[in-house]
Amino acid sequence: MNKQVLLAGRPTGMLKESDFSIIEITVPELQDNEVLVKIDYISLDPAMRGWMNAGTTYIRGVEIGEVMRAFAAGTVLNSKHPDFTKGDAVTGTMGAQSHAVMQGKHLTKVDISKVPLSWYVGILGMPGLTAYFGLLDKGQPKAGETVLVSGAAGMVGSVVGQIAKIKGCKVIGIAGGKDKCNTLLNEFGFDAAIDYKATENIGKAIKEVAPNGIDVYFDNVGGEILDAALLNLAMNARVVVCGAISQYNATEVKGIKNYMKLISARGTMTGIIVFDYFPRATEAITDLSKWLIEGKIIYKEHVVEGLDDFASTLQMLFTGANTGKLVIKV
Amino acid sequence: MNKQVLLAGRPTGMLKESDFSIIEITVPELQDNEVLVKIDYISLDPAMRGWMNAGTTYIRGVEIGEVMRAFAAGTVLNSKHPDFTKGDAVTGTMGAQSHAVMQGKHLTKVDISKVPLSWYVGILGMPGLTAYFGLLDKGQPKAGETVLVSGAAGMVGSVVGQIAKIKGCKVIGIAGGKDKCNTLLNEFGFDAAIDYKATENIGKAIKEVAPNGIDVYFDNVGGEILDAALLNLAMNARVVVCGAISQYNATEVKGIKNYMKLISARGTMTGIIVFDYFPRATEAITDLSKWLIEGKIIYKEHVVEGLDDFASTLQMLFTGANTGKLVIKV
Repeated sequence: MNKQVLLAGRPTGMLKESDFSIIEITVPELQDNEVLVKIDYISLDPAMRGWMNAGTTYIRGVEIGEVMRAFAAGTVLNSKHPDFTKGDAVTGTMGAQSHAVMQGKHLTKVDISKVPLSWYVGILGMPGLTAYFGLLDKGQPKAGETVLVSGAAGMVGSVVGQIAKIKGCKVIGIAGGKDKCNTLLNEFGFDAAIDYKATENIGKAIKEVAPNGIDVYFDNVGGEILDAALLNLAMNARVVVCGAISQYNATEVKGIKNYMKLISARGTMTGIIVFDYFPRATEAITDLSKWLIEGKIIYKEHVVEGLDDFASTLQMLFTGANTGKLVIKV
Repeated sequence: MNKQVLLAGRPTGMLKESDFSIIEITVPELQDNEVLVKIDYISLDPAMRGWMNAGTTYIRGVEIGEVMRAFAAGTVLNSKHPDFTKGDAVTGTMGAQSHAVMQGKHLTKVDISKVPLSWYVGILGMPGLTAYFGLLDKGQPKAGETVLVSGAAGMVGSVVGQIAKIKGCKVIGIAGGKDKCNTLLNEFGFDAAIDYKATENIGKAIKEVAPNGIDVYFDNVGGEILDAALLNLAMNARVVVCGAISQYNATEVKGIKNYMKLISARGTMTGIIVFDYFPRATEAITDLSKWLIEGKIIYKEHVVEGLDDFASTLQMLFTGANTGKLVIKV
């Protein structure tokens, strides 16, 4: 039997329990070139909130009644595709379910001899690649520059900050709460941390720790924090917009007012979509694995067991309840 | 005697008569390396509104009691600098006044054998260079692409659109009023014109004339029109932010809400500051002069005589009352 999480409603504002339904169905028989995968780990990502909306942005919305889109890692149970055999570890956009029948061409075989399988939905998967290419390819940080990252205690933010440290930058993180800020400073090696929940004027707080301005701003949150960062851009600054988690559940989006600072700072603002970098995935996986094994990057997972609480687990991303990369162990 | 326009106040909202005072003083005696210039033409530019504010953005604000900063063209009356002699035509940031004593190194000699002197404060001066480098260097339009420009009947916008046509693009202009839109279509050769004053939903109007999206958006106005343009970006679109004339006199700046579209469109948003391109001015002047002489660019001036109505003349830029490049003939 295959347990599946289906999209059942399109939320306005914060997603809720009733936006998903859970069913069990029989696994269909395999056709030629198909592979049956037992899913072990499912990645929960902020982008999922956008996929719950109708219409198409960079990718079409999930249909009502369709299995919720999700990136996952698992083990091959049966294969009618020449490249896969039983026992292979694989990843792919397999959906929020316990089993998946996939076209072999949509799966990637992964090496779990040195790292655990779950890492391939996190630090060696979409969010890790987002951090790696978003910072290095879009942000182009140079040694000695100042890098600011928001959502800094989250999966993408914590990796962005640690890669920036490896590249010789001064790194400032913005996160919500004292505990998260302590983690940034004491575990991830950030140079400074700003607790936005305890800070009246975020723009001023940034200026205090970065009096010469920000060379690269990696934005995971949007809204007021993006506006405060724009005020503090150094000359030729690069703003990399990765997400706007503060806005995903908002019914009215908050506009940014300080984009004119891009003119005076001769700055650029650009977006990162990780799918564009999949052809270059090996570069990122090679570097990130090396840094992980050398202990230069610390990676934390927050594992929740089972598919039954899918909605409340996904909500954790937006309330900031998770500590580390949020993963469902099926 | 030298007639000078001094900054007398810092406006909140729309600038007013009392923000300037007009005085007459004696011209001081020339020191070594100085040049006395009789100013013939003064350029009025939207950027002046920003220069009236306190503080520093890309350039420091004009001080209260100081001659209002302005780009101007004139004729050398007397010179103690080896490179200049009486009768030379020159340009420079000489201020809003009838005469200027300038360091020779801050003046540029110009060739008026083929084009009139006044063109050097417009099409061959700052606004012309802004259009040229903003579009070609920042916007990088390719033949067959769709270029959208706002403030399209204005000095910068009309030149941006005409250069884009020369480069083989489809060109859409946004302007206020039927007359201006007719000028875009019938005189400047635009492919489509949107009258924002007569259009309820600008985003939808852009979509109708550019169903495949906008490849280059050259923004002169900011605010709601920028937001509407962002909604319509094509993949890999370039947004060039040149100004935000709709916001210069606003007491509360309107935020832009659709910047997330930069992510899904893999777009970039960048600013243009013309000062950065002064070392490359000859490139632009050569091309623009050629296109003007060949009749490929039509250039209109709106000449107002005398310095006495400086404030009300400058206001015309923000009410849209001028038709063509606004110039004061001293």
